[in-house]
Amino acid sequence: MSAKNAFYAQSGGVTAVINASACGVIETARKHPDKIANVYAGRNGIIGALTEDLIDTSQESSADIAALRHTPSGGFGSCRFKLKGLEESKREYERLIEVFKAHNIGYFFYNGGGDSADTCYKVSQLSEKMGFPVQAIHVPKTVDNDLPITDNCPGFGSVAKYIAVSTLEASFDVRSMAATSTKIFVLEVMGRHAGWIAAACGLVEDNKIPVVVLFPEVEFDQEKFLAQVDEKVKEHGFCTIVVSEGTHWPDGRFLAEQGTRDSFGHAQLGGAAPVVANMIKEALGYKFHWAVADYLQRAARHLSSASDVEQAYALGKAAVEMALEGHNSIMPTVVRKSSAPYEWEIGRAPLSEVANVEKMMPMEFITEDGFGITSACKEYLYPLIQGEAYPPYNKNGMPEYVTLKGASVPRKLDSFEL
Amino acid sequence: MSAKNAFYAQSGGVTAVINASACGVIETARKHPDKIANVYAGRNGIIGALTEDLIDTSQESSADIAALRHTPSGGFGSCRFKLKGLEESKREYERLIEVFKAHNIGYFFYNGGGDSADTCYKVSQLSEKMGFPVQAIHVPKTVDNDLPITDNCPGFGSVAKYIAVSTLEASFDVRSMAATSTKIFVLEVMGRHAGWIAAACGLVEDNKIPVVVLFPEVEFDQEKFLAQVDEKVKEHGFCTIVVSEGTHWPDGRFLAEQGTRDSFGHAQLGGAAPVVANMIKEALGYKFHWAVADYLQRAARHLSSASDVEQAYALGKAAVEMALEGHNSIMPTVVRKSSAPYEWEIGRAPLSEVANVEKMMPMEFITEDGFGITSACKEYLYPLIQGEAYPPYNKNGMPEYVTLKGASVPRKLDSFEL
Repeated sequence: MSAKNAFYAQSGGVTAVINASACGVIETARKHPDKIANVYAGRNGIIGALTEDLIDTSQESSADIAALRHTPSGGFGSCRFKLKGLEESKREYERLIEVFKAHNIGYFFYNGGGDSADTCYKVSQLSEKMGFPVQAIHVPKTVDNDLPITDNCPGFGSVAKYIAVSTLEASFDVRSMAATSTKIFVLEVMGRHAGWIAAACGLVEDNKIPVVVLFPEVEFDQEKFLAQVDEKVKEHGFCTIVVSEGTHWPDGRFLAEQGTRDSFGHAQLGGAAPVVANMIKEALGYKFHWAVADYLQRAARHLSSASDVEQAYALGKAAVEMALEGHNSIMPTVVRKSSAPYEWEIGRAPLSEVANVEKMMPMEFITEDGFGITSACKEYLYPLIQGEAYPPYNKNGMPEYVTLKGASVPRKLDSFEL
Repeated sequence: MSAKNAFYAQSGGVTAVINASACGVIETARKHPDKIANVYAGRNGIIGALTEDLIDTSQESSADIAALRHTPSGGFGSCRFKLKGLEESKREYERLIEVFKAHNIGYFFYNGGGDSADTCYKVSQLSEKMGFPVQAIHVPKTVDNDLPITDNCPGFGSVAKYIAVSTLEASFDVRSMAATSTKIFVLEVMGRHAGWIAAACGLVEDNKIPVVVLFPEVEFDQEKFLAQVDEKVKEHGFCTIVVSEGTHWPDGRFLAEQGTRDSFGHAQLGGAAPVVANMIKEALGYKFHWAVADYLQRAARHLSSASDVEQAYALGKAAVEMALEGHNSIMPTVVRKSSAPYEWEIGRAPLSEVANVEKMMPMEFITEDGFGITSACKEYLYPLIQGEAYPPYNKNGMPEYVTLKGASVPRKLDSFEL
């Protein structure tokens, strides 16, 4: 069998460690030039494949590829472009195969969450049918930690570490000020559907911080919430509140959709944190501060967890190795062997079982009152934030993140309208 | 001369490194038991002195005092309690001296910004007059970097590093997404009057990030601002915007005071970032994300600059040494000898020249268009964010920040109504 090329693309919201997976894919592929001639990356994700806008990764130096391991964001660009069913998006799937054929691409490594797992699965099915079989391997990535079968998803551990540490630090701050000033600190974190990231803030309880967590999994009960906060302030002098962006009222409206209008009558400037903070001020009179972490949390490579970086790399590496072993339509996974000490190994899951399945937080991870996490949850979370994997810094005190050259592969086909 | 006790208090908003100064004070005092019998700390700042609520730091282990060096927040508690003029706040000043006398306190180390420098100055004047002379030394601290004479203030360098790195990381993130999704990232940072923190974000320009900075020193010009943003998006595909909380319209109104009302008609939920983000969306149509760093920035000990931690400690140490040399009514300062390589030494400033003077950002640090920083500003900033001084982490992956015992010194006086 003569060597084929590989195609790699990043999908959806980027993370602090998705580039570590890219690094794992490319470094491993480079060790097998007899089987993988070159790795082409999609510029801005799958759109790069559809528009035949491919990046020639062989033009990137070993040092730059190695630097991807400690560089946050998507080094090749990403996109939120969802391919639908095989019939509905037939034109797009056929174009993908056409591009793969034109560039002798025999391996498809797609690095993303649920949607990209589904696309990956469909490509493997279709390519076979179309007589140009491509081995499609999905590399898991999502800060939301919502992929099934794998114990956890690369990207999540680093957000969890950053958010847990930041919550601890801000809580120490408000504790210092609480006697005469700020008594409430509200932090808004990502999580539309799943409260995994918010759960990580619950870890600060082990540092004796009074914390109330608002999960998207639990309908917001204003009265119960205010009573909880008041009780904690009365007991500890202060209280930290963590609110998932997806926290919602019983009728499904997000907390952030408070009907807020600016002076021009424009709707809602957004943010569940200010809504919660003002609600507390209104009802209980406590002085507050609030923060919205947004992109800072998923980009915070400066505080990634070592286990997350290691797994992100290992899953990229395993994807290539599995492809070389002849596997198709699978996703390498993290299998937890033990929590203390933390031991894990690489497993694999068929994409048919990954696509379109969302893993929610088990209800036994949330305390009965709905405002905290259980010891089972802590046991699950701690291994994922273990270890510090700092990036290198230059002499000016800034991290040395790499920007790739991104040289284009010459086009061979007609253009394609998205 | 028999040994006297020292009093130490933390004032105003706390920082990532104010405890490093406390560590410098206490460790140095412990080396001179012949002159300083014990260090009493004010619980919750100067209020602790007024209410005779003193913490006996001799009850804290050497290990716990050493751990203050890497623990953010105010380990003894702080407050925002401003003593006014000697006449106006006569009762409070006299109470301070009474408490100092009752506890044989001959040294007063006050760790804070402009207000505490003023209080420190007045205590040294009054104590002399009242026949119980106290050596009052001010230890500088403020994330706002607005104290005069000293080249910079402990606390600022760490915020600057955290904010510069976070801006870089989030900018890499939005760059990855910009082709088909988010093109604008807005980060709100602290700074009511001075734009030092916002200026630090301007450093990302050296990483080829298109950035527009809004300073409190520059009146907001919406038209010019939107044109700048649009130009950068058209050229680079995305744009990062940093807005100081103190950014204001020509008439003085803060951007955050947009007359925003919730559905109950309550005023303004706050945040200049969402105002700016929505303004861009409205005018230019670009998809945005925004973050408000708030306490996260000043508490982020996990990414403190090594030079900041070193200076915070050195100034606390110098304060004690200067007191032992007989100095009074002064503040140890940072004197910059050279920017590249960075060299500095400890100097001192008379409190009469520090009290009530606010150091603004020099206009030659802001570019002519008002949206960026000059190379002179970069030369000033880089040394302050040099080096990484990471805290230790436990096996679970959380930093080992210390919570002190905080044992009380027995009271000797009648209670005092604040």
